[in-house]
Amino acid sequence: MSRLQHVMVSFRKQGFMRLLHARISRLEKGLVEISASNRPELSQQDGFVHAGVMATLADNAAGYATLSLLPPGSRVLAVEFKLSFIRPAVGQAIRARGKVRKLGRTIALCEIEVETRRQGKWVSCAWGSETVYCDIAKSQNQQGPL
Amino acid sequence: MSRLQHVMVSFRKQGFMRLLHARISRLEKGLVEISASNRPELSQQDGFVHAGVMATLADNAAGYATLSLLPPGSRVLAVEFKLSFIRPAVGQAIRARGKVRKLGRTIALCEIEVETRRQGKWVSCAWGSETVYCDIAKSQNQQGPL
Amino acid sequence: MSRLQHVMVSFRKQGFMRLLHARISRLEKGLVEISASNRPELSQQDGFVHAGVMATLADNAAGYATLSLLPPGSRVLAVEFKLSFIRPAVGQAIRARGKVRKLGRTIALCEIEVETRRQGKWVSCAWGSETVYCDIAKSQNQQGPL
Amino acid sequence: MSRLQHVMVSFRKQGFMRLLHARISRLEKGLVEISASNRPELSQQDGFVHAGVMATLADNAAGYATLSLLPPGSRVLAVEFKLSFIRPAVGQAIRARGKVRKLGRTIALCEIEVETRRQGKWVSCAWGSETVYCDIAKSQNQQGPL
Repeated sequence: MSRLQHVMVSFRKQGFMRLLHARISRLEKGLVEISASNRPELSQQDGFVHAGVMATLADNAAGYATLSLLPPGSRVLAVEFKLSFIRPAVGQAIRARGKVRKLGRTIALCEIEVETRRQGKWVSCAWGSETVYCDIAKSQNQQGPL
Repeated sequence: MSRLQHVMVSFRKQGFMRLLHARISRLEKGLVEISASNRPELSQQDGFVHAGVMATLADNAAGYATLSLLPPGSRVLAVEFKLSFIRPAVGQAIRARGKVRKLGRTIALCEIEVETRRQGKWVSCAWGSETVYCDIAKSQNQQGPL
Repeated sequence: MSRLQHVMVSFRKQGFMRLLHARISRLEKGLVEISASNRPELSQQDGFVHAGVMATLADNAAGYATLSLLPPGSRVLAVEFKLSFIRPAVGQAIRARGKVRKLGRTIALCEIEVETRRQGKWVSCAWGSETVYCDIAKSQNQQGPL
Repeated sequence: MSRLQHVMVSFRKQGFMRLLHARISRLEKGLVEISASNRPELSQQDGFVHAGVMATLADNAAGYATLSLLPPGSRVLAVEFKLSFIRPAVGQAIRARGKVRKLGRTIALCEIEVETRRQGKWVSCAWGSETVYCDIAKSQNQQGPL
């Protein structure tokens, strides 16, 4: 199993991504983008996309951007993240991007950004950072016999 | 409409809270707690409660803790939040608490904490802070004739 | 007085910048860089530049990057900042850059980065974000008769 | 050498603490307080204590609060910290407190708070969190023969 397949397999195990109808829309080594259509179920009280939806997609994008750089069988855990909200999140679709800025031996630092699409244009709504703990698989044997 | 009723009315407008089956379980001036039962739809890849669910409930609790101190008709907006993850979030239920530490003229600072219930005991899983922007209603007339 | 002069005048009032022997090394609208030579007085226990020195220069750079966009007579106040440390800060010199990512009516969001120079090359040591509160001068008359 | 002595020895190696005339004013397992007298050299442009001074003392207090829980010979490194500023820092003296909220195998999470003394009373000026990386000494033999 390749590193990018490893990300896809892990992503499909997340019940919460299914609840949000979210999908991985871009997957490269060190960069992952997760997207969802906007719908009333994702709204806060003023009809904007809920800050929690943005945080969820951004956190996931950062975790998988990190996992994409690690050998299959590795695990990632969010240590902390901080997200600043720049504009009200309105639009037909939402996407979050996680990008690894520094991968250390046990800790990775990611930049996270969230955008919504308004009249065909993507506009930045939130931006921040996430620290990810990396539990790196020592060898592929740790994955089991298959 | 009282300040606490104002919080309830706003909360019920959030489509995302319905999707999470979340409810306000404690509501005081400056302190709000939001709870949900755990279920597979809220999980990440290892079966724990998704960090995004914790962030969502915590962000909401902080916003409403702030709103509970403002005159009805006021609005709150998250400026930024930071959440640190302390333990894997496992258990039958999850709750997040937002508590206002400082209310300024336009900005409030809240402490946020997330717990899960395991074998009848609440255990802290995440902790952090949120900055909330307060758009304070000048008079109750802004709410309209009712 | 121009906006950039306004920044210089404010900077020179900071006793702490003198204690650090820090100077503004780059000054554009929305981007400020502050530099200092490294010396034993700025060290932590392992001889690296102290995280507090990095935080100080970064906080200042963000504040002045914001002030550079506001009319003279305006004031800025740090609401909060978050800084992640990427590498040990060693080298002959240190510089921090603040860049405004979003300027709202009362709040600005800045990206901050700290670098040290090692063998003639600048290397990134810390990266993060700062929220700045803007107390915007309504007219230049607020500055007084001079 | 005890854990608390280990903290004192490390603290005295910091050139930056001498420059700030800072001292450890409270030292318990998991809780450290660092204090300094206020003076013009620590000021920002409006005469308040510089945010960088607050960040420096808070970061140090968190690091040493963590180190106080680890076997001598261990090392701590700041991963990231976030500090929110609540009130202008005015007064005759300043102190920062770091308190360990969770000590994991390699990462500790600390709460940080900064106060200034005004007319004999300590007032909270800044509050936040710090993530500390712990490089735990495996045995005291790592410290060398003395």
